[in-house]
Amino acid sequence: MTKSSIRKIPITRVNDGEAAEITDALAIEEPLEIRLEYTLNGEIKVQNVSVTMRTPGNDTELATGFLFTEGIIKNIDDIANIDHCLIACAENKENVIQVKLNEGIIPNLQNTERNFYTTSSCGVCGKGSIAAIRTVGAFVEQKENETSVNSEVLYQLPEILKKDQQVFAETGGLHASALFNLNGELLMVREDVGRHNALDKLIGASLQKSLLPLNNHILLLSGRASFELVQKAVMAGIKIIVAVGAPSSLAVELAEEFEITLAGFLRNQRFNIYTAGYRILFPVHENSN
Amino acid sequence: MTKSSIRKIPITRVNDGEAAEITDALAIEEPLEIRLEYTLNGEIKVQNVSVTMRTPGNDTELATGFLFTEGIIKNIDDIANIDHCLIACAENKENVIQVKLNEGIIPNLQNTERNFYTTSSCGVCGKGSIAAIRTVGAFVEQKENETSVNSEVLYQLPEILKKDQQVFAETGGLHASALFNLNGELLMVREDVGRHNALDKLIGASLQKSLLPLNNHILLLSGRASFELVQKAVMAGIKIIVAVGAPSSLAVELAEEFEITLAGFLRNQRFNIYTAGYRILFPVHENSN
Repeated sequence: MTKSSIRKIPITRVNDGEAAEITDALAIEEPLEIRLEYTLNGEIKVQNVSVTMRTPGNDTELATGFLFTEGIIKNIDDIANIDHCLIACAENKENVIQVKLNEGIIPNLQNTERNFYTTSSCGVCGKGSIAAIRTVGAFVEQKENETSVNSEVLYQLPEILKKDQQVFAETGGLHASALFNLNGELLMVREDVGRHNALDKLIGASLQKSLLPLNNHILLLSGRASFELVQKAVMAGIKIIVAVGAPSSLAVELAEEFEITLAGFLRNQRFNIYTAGYRILFPVHENSN
Repeated sequence: MTKSSIRKIPITRVNDGEAAEITDALAIEEPLEIRLEYTLNGEIKVQNVSVTMRTPGNDTELATGFLFTEGIIKNIDDIANIDHCLIACAENKENVIQVKLNEGIIPNLQNTERNFYTTSSCGVCGKGSIAAIRTVGAFVEQKENETSVNSEVLYQLPEILKKDQQVFAETGGLHASALFNLNGELLMVREDVGRHNALDKLIGASLQKSLLPLNNHILLLSGRASFELVQKAVMAGIKIIVAVGAPSSLAVELAEEFEITLAGFLRNQRFNIYTAGYRILFPVHENSN
């Protein structure tokens, strides 16, 4: 993370009735508008596709990951160029990013307005949300993958993440998404005030490095696992998701539908397995009889 | 919360290498589409204004709170009727809610598409986001309020919330917003997988009970304080916000701008004061000299 992820301010710290003036670090939150530029019938179109509250830093990855996980683009090769636009603001903040698509690439904007949920014939229901993903995901049908991970590897992941999660350590205010290989080696961490942004940054960076599909990796989420996070993981071909917090019902349903291994509450040598547990291997105990 | 907030499923619990099959409770996450029905130039319009992933229960409050905190309606009297619509789904889920406005009430939909952020002349920046709120908030200019709270009262709030936060206790998967009076008595708790939904439910319920502005109350947030949560609090006239987690930079800027008392990291007889600390009173210690 860049320095622009943190702001230092004077605060009052109260401890057991005693107040002290100190300097504290805050995680920065600023809006980012993602604009898409493409050519349709010979005409150049510029369209705002999202405004998200994010922590500045890795904006190019965030825009790339967002466009990919929302199914708007299919591949990194769709993108010709990504640039920040200056906005008419005394502070000159880099809060607009414009993604120019290559000639002949038409973005799939069908889903963006209503965000997957209302596109199915069913209308708005969890099952409809899940079905909609099947139509746009490039890697969703790869069920034959035989990835597996040793349970002992999982125990170590939160500790490894903690050591690397710098901005969280200073501010206590950021979510993280982390990518590990199956031996538990940390490959990448991204942080953000929004958990979906942290994952979009991670997937965007992976896409830029041509690492997709991430089907021989472990995704660690620093907090809870929502539908939206599992959806983004599905789009990136991720097969193993482990969360420090709880999953929601729809996150579990989605993981089940796409045969993704979903574990939660990973803390202190413990975790819960919700779906596709066969990918987690346990050491064979010798029989004590 | 209703029973529909929880789903029980079989899971595998792993504890120090030992796996056991147990039944666990998940917080339910399902999409909710909020539709607005109103009359414009003699013509009836029905418009989808939001799809949010929420925990079912208190949907009427959620829709009411969302419309109010986004500045789309000005008052509870704008609403003629709120009803769930059946959707064409075998499971008959109540995932669409339609809010009918009274005759002559035109909703302010200017801000919804881009969600406040890009409406200011500045374009997209934190300052612009803050300025946009001033134009739509009914209670934002009430700075003269002399509300104050004793620091000892604040210490107790998380414990009181914990006792009442039933679904979180069962699932570990929900955020809460809680309303207290200045003596630290709990008035209302609302829970949701989305923290903004929990607060919309709380404010919607308060609006239904004609409690607004909530300027003699304390808002307790079970997690972090983002821009969006402080924005919603501003709209409801809340003057004291205390979060168990960290605030973001923009949350602090917004609180400062509207002279709201914002405290964070409220844990174990400790908290940090970020803005307008004068509303928090400390017991006078006898001088030991």
